[in-house]
Amino acid sequence: MSWNTFGRIFRFTTWGESHGPALGVVVDGCPPELAISEAMIQPYLDARRPGQSKFTTQRNEPDQVKILSGVFEAPDGVQRTTGTPISLMIENTDQRSKDYSEVAKAYRPGHADYAYDAKYGFRDYRGGGRSSARETAARVAAGGVARLVIPEVSIMAYVSQIGGDRIDPANFDAGQIGQNPFFCPDAEAAKRWEVLVDEVRLAGSSIGAVVECVATGVPAGWGAPLYAKLDADLAAAMMGINAVKGVEIGDGFAAATLRGEQNADPMRPGSGAPQFDANHAGGIAGGISTGQPVVLRVAFKPTSSILIPVPTISNTGEASEIRTKGRHDPCVGIRGVPVVEAMMALVLADHKLLHRGQTGR
Amino acid sequence: MSWNTFGRIFRFTTWGESHGPALGVVVDGCPPELAISEAMIQPYLDARRPGQSKFTTQRNEPDQVKILSGVFEAPDGVQRTTGTPISLMIENTDQRSKDYSEVAKAYRPGHADYAYDAKYGFRDYRGGGRSSARETAARVAAGGVARLVIPEVSIMAYVSQIGGDRIDPANFDAGQIGQNPFFCPDAEAAKRWEVLVDEVRLAGSSIGAVVECVATGVPAGWGAPLYAKLDADLAAAMMGINAVKGVEIGDGFAAATLRGEQNADPMRPGSGAPQFDANHAGGIAGGISTGQPVVLRVAFKPTSSILIPVPTISNTGEASEIRTKGRHDPCVGIRGVPVVEAMMALVLADHKLLHRGQTGR
Amino acid sequence: MSWNTFGRIFRFTTWGESHGPALGVVVDGCPPELAISEAMIQPYLDARRPGQSKFTTQRNEPDQVKILSGVFEAPDGVQRTTGTPISLMIENTDQRSKDYSEVAKAYRPGHADYAYDAKYGFRDYRGGGRSSARETAARVAAGGVARLVIPEVSIMAYVSQIGGDRIDPANFDAGQIGQNPFFCPDAEAAKRWEVLVDEVRLAGSSIGAVVECVATGVPAGWGAPLYAKLDADLAAAMMGINAVKGVEIGDGFAAATLRGEQNADPMRPGSGAPQFDANHAGGIAGGISTGQPVVLRVAFKPTSSILIPVPTISNTGEASEIRTKGRHDPCVGIRGVPVVEAMMALVLADHKLLHRGQTGR
Amino acid sequence: MSWNTFGRIFRFTTWGESHGPALGVVVDGCPPELAISEAMIQPYLDARRPGQSKFTTQRNEPDQVKILSGVFEAPDGVQRTTGTPISLMIENTDQRSKDYSEVAKAYRPGHADYAYDAKYGFRDYRGGGRSSARETAARVAAGGVARLVIPEVSIMAYVSQIGGDRIDPANFDAGQIGQNPFFCPDAEAAKRWEVLVDEVRLAGSSIGAVVECVATGVPAGWGAPLYAKLDADLAAAMMGINAVKGVEIGDGFAAATLRGEQNADPMRPGSGAPQFDANHAGGIAGGISTGQPVVLRVAFKPTSSILIPVPTISNTGEASEIRTKGRHDPCVGIRGVPVVEAMMALVLADHKLLHRGQTGR
Repeated sequence: MSWNTFGRIFRFTTWGESHGPALGVVVDGCPPELAISEAMIQPYLDARRPGQSKFTTQRNEPDQVKILSGVFEAPDGVQRTTGTPISLMIENTDQRSKDYSEVAKAYRPGHADYAYDAKYGFRDYRGGGRSSARETAARVAAGGVARLVIPEVSIMAYVSQIGGDRIDPANFDAGQIGQNPFFCPDAEAAKRWEVLVDEVRLAGSSIGAVVECVATGVPAGWGAPLYAKLDADLAAAMMGINAVKGVEIGDGFAAATLRGEQNADPMRPGSGAPQFDANHAGGIAGGISTGQPVVLRVAFKPTSSILIPVPTISNTGEASEIRTKGRHDPCVGIRGVPVVEAMMALVLADHKLLHRGQTGR
Repeated sequence: MSWNTFGRIFRFTTWGESHGPALGVVVDGCPPELAISEAMIQPYLDARRPGQSKFTTQRNEPDQVKILSGVFEAPDGVQRTTGTPISLMIENTDQRSKDYSEVAKAYRPGHADYAYDAKYGFRDYRGGGRSSARETAARVAAGGVARLVIPEVSIMAYVSQIGGDRIDPANFDAGQIGQNPFFCPDAEAAKRWEVLVDEVRLAGSSIGAVVECVATGVPAGWGAPLYAKLDADLAAAMMGINAVKGVEIGDGFAAATLRGEQNADPMRPGSGAPQFDANHAGGIAGGISTGQPVVLRVAFKPTSSILIPVPTISNTGEASEIRTKGRHDPCVGIRGVPVVEAMMALVLADHKLLHRGQTGR
Repeated sequence: MSWNTFGRIFRFTTWGESHGPALGVVVDGCPPELAISEAMIQPYLDARRPGQSKFTTQRNEPDQVKILSGVFEAPDGVQRTTGTPISLMIENTDQRSKDYSEVAKAYRPGHADYAYDAKYGFRDYRGGGRSSARETAARVAAGGVARLVIPEVSIMAYVSQIGGDRIDPANFDAGQIGQNPFFCPDAEAAKRWEVLVDEVRLAGSSIGAVVECVATGVPAGWGAPLYAKLDADLAAAMMGINAVKGVEIGDGFAAATLRGEQNADPMRPGSGAPQFDANHAGGIAGGISTGQPVVLRVAFKPTSSILIPVPTISNTGEASEIRTKGRHDPCVGIRGVPVVEAMMALVLADHKLLHRGQTGR
Repeated sequence: MSWNTFGRIFRFTTWGESHGPALGVVVDGCPPELAISEAMIQPYLDARRPGQSKFTTQRNEPDQVKILSGVFEAPDGVQRTTGTPISLMIENTDQRSKDYSEVAKAYRPGHADYAYDAKYGFRDYRGGGRSSARETAARVAAGGVARLVIPEVSIMAYVSQIGGDRIDPANFDAGQIGQNPFFCPDAEAAKRWEVLVDEVRLAGSSIGAVVECVATGVPAGWGAPLYAKLDADLAAAMMGINAVKGVEIGDGFAAATLRGEQNADPMRPGSGAPQFDANHAGGIAGGISTGQPVVLRVAFKPTSSILIPVPTISNTGEASEIRTKGRHDPCVGIRGVPVVEAMMALVLADHKLLHRGQTGR
C-alpha cells in the first residue's frame, strides 16, 4: 500500500487521469501459468461501464482493455500469465472537450478539488483528473486478473439501499441482480428505485447508497495479523473507493448494540470444516478468515457534482458559487458494485499468496 | 503495512503475547531531535490500563514502559530522539498461572482461536496469545511517540454509545470524558451506563460500544491518494483493533441516506484557510485532509469471552461447549478509547512525514 | 523494492518484454510542480538507444518516449508534474519476426533462460522476453524523471575498462566521453578499444567491461541506515542491471588491501562544508552521504549471447548445443553507461525525499 | 527494506545502540511450526562474539540471546515458532564507562560520525551508537532463525584475503576454517596472517580483508526479478554490513576481463537437475538461482578507529586531530564472517518464502 500501489505479493499500480489519453494498471506478482485473455477481463469492465442506463453518468466509453505485457502462449498453446508484470491499458475516448474555466477556478464543495490544490499546489481539473471515479476502471481490470488467482472463491455484490430505502431480505433473489440497472437483488425495491433515482436525476441532485458484498469459498486461514489483517485490508480497500464513507464487516455497527451471547457464532462439528450457527463475524475472526462467507457493507455518499448551486470559494480565496454542468451521476453507488467486487477479489488474491508464502498451506 | 508492522515512514512493529515475559514495539522513522521521556508516554498507557474500574477486566498490570534505544541526551541537555529505532518494552507481570487445558482444546466462538489454528497449525492459547487485546498496549506506547511528531494536532476520543444507548449531543461536555469510567462526554449517559454495564457484568455477558474520535489541527494536504488515502489508512488502522467491526468517516453510513445538496460542505472565504459550513466529509476529501477536524466512528462488538456457555467444537472436531472462567471484560469498547486515539496519532504522524517527503510542504 | 518496483517514496514500476507491443514504467511519488516534457527525457533514451555504432547490437529502435499521465499545464503555462503517477511508454517497433524455435527449446548457458523456466514453468523466449536488456529503456526513462527531482546533482558515468584494458587516469578528459562510441574519457583507450571490440565482434564473441559513475553535488545527510543505507541501495540498483556481477563504492576491493591510516579521508575546516583530503569512502560513511562525490564502479560480464557454439541442454533435459543467430552485442557494458547513470539518479532522488520526509532537512 | 527493516515476507527489524541497555531484533513472517530454542541461535552469536582472540576487539560481551515472543510449546511437546513476531534481545553488559568527550566533539574520519550529525543534527556518540558494528549481533541472531527456514541450504563463509595476502586455492580445506582465529581455510595463510595482523595491531593500525561465502543446496528458481533479484538483494545485504565497500557475485570484476565463451557455464544433462561445467555466474542468472552454489565475495575496508592520529574537524568546524583510545579492532573483516553468513541466510529465507508465495513451488 503506497501512493498508487495496493497489495503485498499480488500488487497493482494504477495510473491515469479522467481526461488524459489513457489510464491503466500494472499488476505485479501474479502467479504464472494462469490462462488469461482480454475477453476474460472485459466483462468486469462492461459491468462498470458508464452510460448504460439513465441512472448513471452519460459519459460514453467503450472501455476496451488491452494487455500489453506479462502473458505468452504456453507450451499447451493457451495464452497464460508468465509471472512478469501484466500491463493493462484502457484508452479514454470520450473526453468531451468542454469549457473547464469554471471548475478550474472554483472548488466544488465535497469534491477533492480544494484538497488536491492544498496538497500539490495545482491539479489537473479536467473531469476531476486523478480523483475522478474513472480511475476505478483500472481497479476493475486488475480485479479481473485477481479472480484468476482465486478460482475457489465466488464474489457477489449488490446495492442493498438507496437513500433511506432498503431491500427486503425476504425478497432477496441473487438472480435479480443482473436484471435491473441497480444491481438490486429485490425486484420490488428495484421498481421503487427507478422512481426515486429518476426523481433525483431530474432534480439535478444525487443520492447515497449502500453496497453489500459476499465472498464464498474463502478457506479458513487467510489474513495476516496483526497489521495486515484480512478485515483491515478490506476496510482500506473499500474506504479507498471514491465516495465511500463507511465500511462494516459482518454485523458491523449493529454488533455494537448486541450482547456477547447474541453475537457469538456457535460452532458444531461438520464434515471437513466446522459448521457455524450464525455469521455475525462476517467470516473473519482475529483478522483471519474462518471459512464462512466473508461479508461486508460499504456506504457511498451522494456525489458532490450536482446541478444545484452551492456556495464555495475560488482558488484565490474569494466567495463564489458552483454547480456542475452537463453529465452527472445521480447515484454513484450503483457503479460502485463492480468496484467493490474487484477490490474484494484483489485483497483475497493477495492474502491467498501471502498465506501460501508464510505457511506453505 | 505488513505482518506486524504499520506505517510507511513513521513505522512501528509490535511483538509479544498476552502471557509471555513482555511485549513491545519498535518505532522506526521517528524524526530526530524531539524531546522524549518515559514520563511522556506513560500517561497514555495509564489511560488504557486494565483493572481501573469494575467495568473493565480485572487483570492488574502496572504497564510501565521502558525506552531501550533511539534516544540520547542532546547538546541542550534534554533527552531527544536520535532518528534511530525507538524500542519500547512493557513487562507482563500478572500472567495469572491458571489452568488453560479447556481453552487449549476447545475453540471460543467469535474468538480468534479457531482461525489461528487453521492458519498456523497451533497457537499460544494462554490468555489469547498474540490475538489478545493486551497487544494494544504496544500500539498505545507507539502512539505516545507519534504524538511528539504532530504537536499541532489535538486528538479526543470518547464512547458515544454502549449497546443501544447513545449519548445526547445536547449534553456533550468534553470535560466529562475524564470524569467517569466510560470516557463518556455525557454525564447523564454515564450514569445510565453504570447500571447497564454492571448488569451485563453480573450476568457474565458483554456488550458492544461505539467510539468516536476527533482530531483537530490537521492542516489541509495530508493524505496520499490513491492507495494510501488518509481515510483508507484510518479505516485499516481502526478495523485492525481487536473487536472492531465497523468504521465511518464523517457522516459514514448516514451519508448513504442523504442527497448531494444535504451532504455538501459549503465553503466560504476565511482568514488563512477557507471556512466550511458543515463537516459531513469528516475532514477528508479525495483521501486528503481539508483542514477541518478529522472525525471518525468505530464499532466494537461485545467480546466473545463470556461466562455464558456457547456450543463449540474441540480442536479435534468434536462437539463441545465453552464458557470463559475468571476475569472478563464486560465492555471492551471502553478500553478501546485510548487505542483509537493512538491509532489516529500514528496514522497522522506517518502522513505528515509522507506529505513532507513528497511535496516539501 | 519488490517484484518490479524500485524505490520507497520516489518509486517506479516497469513492465514489458523485448518483443511485446511496448514497454513502460510508472513513476509514482514524484514531487509536484516540476517542469517536465517528453523532450527532457528523450535524450537519455537516445544515449542508450541500440544500433548507433557497430559496437552495439544492431536492433534499430527509435525508442520514442510518450508521457501518458501525471503531468498538466500549471497556472504559469508550463507543463509540470502533478504529484500523481507518471506513466511513460515506449513502443517496440523492431521486433524482427524471426524463428525462435531453437531458443524456445534450448537454454543459452549464462542467460536467464533456464532459471526463468525453473521459476515460472515457462517463459516468453522471444528476444529474452522480460530478462532482455531492452527493459533498461524503461529504467532510463524513469531516470530522466528522477533527474528533475535532484537538480543540485550532476551525474557522469563512463567506461573505464574493456576486457583487461583500462583507461589511463592521466588521460582522463570528461569532454571525451561523448566523442566516441564507448563513453570513454581517455581518447587513446578509445582508439585501442575500437580495434579490440571490432575483433571481438567479428569473432562472434563478447567481452566484459567496467563502468564508473560519479555523482557530484549530493549534500551530506542522504541515506537511511541501517537497511536502506545509500550504498546498500546503490549496490542493489547496480547489481540488478542486466549482466552486472560486481559493485564497488569508493575504493571497493582495493580498500581490502589498505591500512587504516591509508584509507582515512582526513577532514579539514572548509567554507560551509568540511574539506576532505581524499575520498576512499566514495562519498558515503555509515550508509549516509558525506558531501563528497559519490563514486562507484560496476562490473559487466560479457553477454552470453554469442555466435560461438556452447554445450547446453534442451528444455526436456537432453544434450544440445546453442549459438546465437543474427544481432548480438559484443560489449553490453557500453550501453550500460546510461543505465548506471539512471539508477544513480533514481536512488538519489528517492533518498532526497526520504531524508526530507524523516528529518525535514 | 526500509529504515531498519530488511526483507519482504521474512522480515527483521533491529534496534539498539552500542552502549544502550540492550539491542535486539524482531523477526516477523517466520513460518510456524519450526522447532526453535535459544540454544539453536546462540552458537552463531558465539562465533561472532568479540574478545575471543587478540586479533579482534577486546570488548568482552557474553552476548546471550533471549527469546521474548513468537514461540510456544507445540502439541508434540517441542518449542516451535507460532508464526507471530519473534523478539530476540541481547543485553549490553560491557559498556565500559569511559570518557567520550573527545569523540563527542571531533569527527573520526572514515567513521559515520560526521554523516550522522549531518543527517540527524546530533548523535549517540558512545561507542559509535547505532553505527557500531555491535548492531550486527542482532543480524546474526536473526540469521539463526532464518537458517531454520532453509534446512536444505548449507552456508560457509571464510576470510580469503587480509590486506594483500590471499589464500592459495590449492591449500583450501574447509575443515581448517574453525581451527584458527581468522576463519581461514588455508592453514599456511593463517600462519602468515598471525604475524601480519599482530604487526598491524601493535602498530595501532587496522587492515582490510575479503570474505567469501558459498551457499549450497539452493534450488533453481529463487529470486524475484526485476527489482528483487536474488543477486541485487544479496548485494544490498552485504553492502549494508559495516565497513563493506564491494560485493561480487561469481566471478565479479574478473568477469569484466573475460570473453563470452570463457564466461559461459556450459550445461549437460544431469539426474534431476542439469550439470554445469563451471560456475562463473555464481549460481544466479537473470536474478534467479540456477541450482548451482551461490557464491559471493565481500570487501571489508580497514576500520577507521585506529591509534594513529588523523587530521579532522570538531563538530563546530574547527581543525583538530583524533586517534582512537583503548580497544580497537585490527581487522574487522574477520568478525564479518558470521555476519556475511547471517545475511546470506536471511536473504535466502526470504526468497524461499517469496518464491513459494508467488508460484506455489
